[in-house]
Amino acid sequence: MRIARFLTNGNEHYGVVEGDEIKEIAGDIFGDFKVTTRRYLLAKVKLLAPMKPGQIWCPGLNFASHLHVSASATGQSSLPKHPQPWTKGVNSLAGPEDNIVIPKASKGNVHYEGELVAVIGKRCRNVSPAQAMDYVCGYTCGNDVSERDWQKADNSYWRAKGSDTFCPIGPWIETEASPTNVEMIVRVNGKEAQRASAKDMLFDFATIISHISQQVTLQPGDALFSGTTGDTAAMKPGDVVEVEMTGVGVLRNYVKAES
Amino acid sequence: MRIARFLTNGNEHYGVVEGDEIKEIAGDIFGDFKVTTRRYLLAKVKLLAPMKPGQIWCPGLNFASHLHVSASATGQSSLPKHPQPWTKGVNSLAGPEDNIVIPKASKGNVHYEGELVAVIGKRCRNVSPAQAMDYVCGYTCGNDVSERDWQKADNSYWRAKGSDTFCPIGPWIETEASPTNVEMIVRVNGKEAQRASAKDMLFDFATIISHISQQVTLQPGDALFSGTTGDTAAMKPGDVVEVEMTGVGVLRNYVKAES
Repeated sequence: MRIARFLTNGNEHYGVVEGDEIKEIAGDIFGDFKVTTRRYLLAKVKLLAPMKPGQIWCPGLNFASHLHVSASATGQSSLPKHPQPWTKGVNSLAGPEDNIVIPKASKGNVHYEGELVAVIGKRCRNVSPAQAMDYVCGYTCGNDVSERDWQKADNSYWRAKGSDTFCPIGPWIETEASPTNVEMIVRVNGKEAQRASAKDMLFDFATIISHISQQVTLQPGDALFSGTTGDTAAMKPGDVVEVEMTGVGVLRNYVKAES
Repeated sequence: MRIARFLTNGNEHYGVVEGDEIKEIAGDIFGDFKVTTRRYLLAKVKLLAPMKPGQIWCPGLNFASHLHVSASATGQSSLPKHPQPWTKGVNSLAGPEDNIVIPKASKGNVHYEGELVAVIGKRCRNVSPAQAMDYVCGYTCGNDVSERDWQKADNSYWRAKGSDTFCPIGPWIETEASPTNVEMIVRVNGKEAQRASAKDMLFDFATIISHISQQVTLQPGDALFSGTTGDTAAMKPGDVVEVEMTGVGVLRNYVKAES
C-alpha cells in the first residue's frame, strides 16, 4: 500500500495511491483508518511530504563507500563501531516536486544524498533489534541535502543539513517494501549520479532503531534516513534531482537559488 | 503575564497565572486569545512544559565562565566567534515537578545546566538582530541536562543532551522579563550550585535568533536556551534540582534512576 499526504482545493488529506488515482483516507494513518470512496486523479493533486515527522534521524556514516566523503567533510577516518545518530531540523522538511533552495549565504557547495527513509509507525522505546522492525510502517525516499562547507566549518549540522528545504521526502509511504531489495538511485537532469543497494547499510534499520530507542522515545511519523553511499556532487540552480528507491517510488525536486 | 500549560481532570489547558490562581485561556497563546472567567487553584493543577516546541535550540558555548567545562567535554579551546547552534531532541521535553531519569546505560555522569529560555512567539526568517526580539514572546527556565561521558564520546549530542526527560522547562512563560535583569541560579537539594547573570551571555538572544534565522525558519513555540555558566556537577538519584531565573520563576525537578 502507498500512503500519501496531499492537498486539493486547499484542504489536506491522506490517501492511498493506486495507479493514477488516490483514494482518500479517513482516520489516523498510524492508528485506525479506512479508505473512503472519495477518489482524485493523482495528476490533479499536490503531493506533500507523506508525514510530518516530529524528528528526522540519520545514522551517521552508514555505507563504507561514503567514508572518503565523510573523511573530507568531518575528518572521520574509520568506519563507526555503532550508529552515531544525529537529527535533521524539521524546519528543513519539503515534499515531492518542491524546490531545494540554496541559501544566499552559501557558496553553493550543496550536495544531494539519495537515501531510503524508514517511517516509524508506533511509539517505540527500549526495543531490541529483533523487535525493532515491528515499529516501522513503511519506507519513503529522501534527499539528505548537505552544504559541505558548513558541514566542515560548524560544530553541528544545524545549517549544513538543516537549512529550510534541505529535507525533501516522498512521494509516499510504501508499506510493502523491504530494504534488502531496494536499489538506491539518484539522477541529476536525467543522468544517473548515485547507485547502491540498501542491503549494504553498515547498520540496518533494526540496529539503528534499537540503538536510538535505548535513550529516546521514537514517535509515529518520525523519519529515519539510511545514510548515503559513494560519491556525491554539488547541485546547481536549474537542476532537477530525482531520488529513486526501487519498489518505493521516485522523489523529484528542483534546485533554486534563494532570491 | 505568566502563561502556563496545565492539566486538570485529564484535560489540557493554557492559563494565566496570578498569585495562587490560574485563569483559563481560550484561543491560541501565540495568536488571538482571551482570558476566561474559569479559575483554578494553582496548587490543584499539574503544570506541564509551558509549550510544545517544534525545535529546541541551544547556542553552543555562550558564557566565558563555562569554557573550561566545554574544553573538557568536547576539546573546545577558545570562545566562539559566532553562535554554534545545535538542537536538543523534542523527545527530551519534561515539565515542572517531573522526574529527570538517568538512563540505565549511563554511568551517572549526568549534570545540571541551569539556563534562561527564550520562547519564539511568531514565525521568523531572515531577521536582523535589531528585529529579532519582536519574535520573542517571553521567557521560561530550562535545565539542559547533559551526560558528560556521552557528550565526549559521541559525534552528536543526541543522547548526551537528548535522552528522554533531559529537557525540563517551566514553570510558565513570563512575558515581561528582560534577560539583562535575570540572575541564573541552580540549587541542588536547596544548596546553591550555580549563579550567574544572563547579561553576560557572549551572544545575546537577538544575535542568536538572527543567526539561526538566516537559514532556518523559527516557529511559534520553538525554544532557545541561553547556554550555561561556570561549573556544573553530576546529579544523583534522589536529588531535587531547582533552576531559578529571577523575575521568571523556579523550575523544580526530581532525579531518578531508570528502573
